[in-house]
Amino acid sequence: MDQYVNNSVNSNECPHHSSPSASYNEDQKKILDRLNRVEGQIKGIQKMVKEERYCVDVLTQIAAARSALDSIAMIIFEDHTRGCVSRAIKNQEGDTEIIRELMEIIKKFIR
Amino acid sequence: MDQYVNNSVNSNECPHHSSPSASYNEDQKKILDRLNRVEGQIKGIQKMVKEERYCVDVLTQIAAARSALDSIAMIIFEDHTRGCVSRAIKNQEGDTEIIRELMEIIKKFIR
Amino acid sequence: MDQYVNNSVNSNECPHHSSPSASYNEDQKKILDRLNRVEGQIKGIQKMVKEERYCVDVLTQIAAARSALDSIAMIIFEDHTRGCVSRAIKNQEGDTEIIRELMEIIKKFIR
Amino acid sequence: MDQYVNNSVNSNECPHHSSPSASYNEDQKKILDRLNRVEGQIKGIQKMVKEERYCVDVLTQIAAARSALDSIAMIIFEDHTRGCVSRAIKNQEGDTEIIRELMEIIKKFIR
Repeated sequence: MDQYVNNSVNSNECPHHSSPSASYNEDQKKILDRLNRVEGQIKGIQKMVKEERYCVDVLTQIAAARSALDSIAMIIFEDHTRGCVSRAIKNQEGDTEIIRELMEIIKKFIR
Repeated sequence: MDQYVNNSVNSNECPHHSSPSASYNEDQKKILDRLNRVEGQIKGIQKMVKEERYCVDVLTQIAAARSALDSIAMIIFEDHTRGCVSRAIKNQEGDTEIIRELMEIIKKFIR
Repeated sequence: MDQYVNNSVNSNECPHHSSPSASYNEDQKKILDRLNRVEGQIKGIQKMVKEERYCVDVLTQIAAARSALDSIAMIIFEDHTRGCVSRAIKNQEGDTEIIRELMEIIKKFIR
Repeated sequence: MDQYVNNSVNSNECPHHSSPSASYNEDQKKILDRLNRVEGQIKGIQKMVKEERYCVDVLTQIAAARSALDSIAMIIFEDHTRGCVSRAIKNQEGDTEIIRELMEIIKKFIR
């Protein structure tokens, strides 16, 4: 899972039902701010490695970046459940598939 | 743990004993290459969020970036144990502290 | 989080809406079988520790028991989402709270 | 990884060098006490599932048992590093293998 995996659909629509936008729409700015911060963390780690900084200090920063990614994922998990998943359940349109898919992606984070 | 935490020592020396460089020295290029790739992944995720791509596709990419960070951490863990930790044990210089510190950082990854 | 935490409601009903049983009802036998197996794993680990078996072998068994618990949790996560959560969303009865609660418990597993 | 995996050596000796006992020897009582508590937690979860208790309460207890297993693992990780690993490094006897093995088992917990 090291590579950038391009398995995303080539559209902004939820694949399970017609929907004008992603469920994290309202949190988009917050998510982008946090991703910017993670990008800064990664650049900081690169700098530390170039400067041959102490191993455990580098590991501490990697753990922090990982935690930040988890927090971002939790926002999207919640938005997705309140948005796409709830719509699918209400409309009884692809709800079986969307819940299966939700479990698969939760499993990737729990592992 | 969302912020960039600057608790690193202001020097390239292992804080536990005199050492000319970080233990990941030999893997430095490999680590920097992988960090570059993670930076690319983060930028890819930012682009996806801006384009309002499907939630689960964004989550899949976040899981991939997280996995990539774990792999980088594992390289540094191993180098640190073979380098700094082994030296401290061999020289009986700060070995108690460095093993304690190793456990603390492992715990951050296991949580 | 080491202790047995007794914060459960003293009833079989979902706290968010009237419901005759837990959502994992259909998987109850499968879950109990797997919990039995985990109990056997824990007893096996106790035996290994009593016999002073090699550390890494004990750690391997602990990792296996932990994985088994994760698999059981994933079954209940899915049943809960298909059952309690879906019902709350369909009936628009406590759906905000039940999704919040779902996120909190997912977070405990991701950490 | 659901099954009880029997890949342990049939002896109390560290496979990497001659050693009279497991490195967690001093913490044996503490580890056994904690494993007893985990066994109690698993039994409590079985009872909850039999009584068809609320899904999220069951999940909370599973998360607690998982955390307890992680804490036990951390004790053994530390003892192993201070004992077996340190001895292998000091005696330069199997240190390459034992560090490799340590990384493999850490990876199982981080995943």
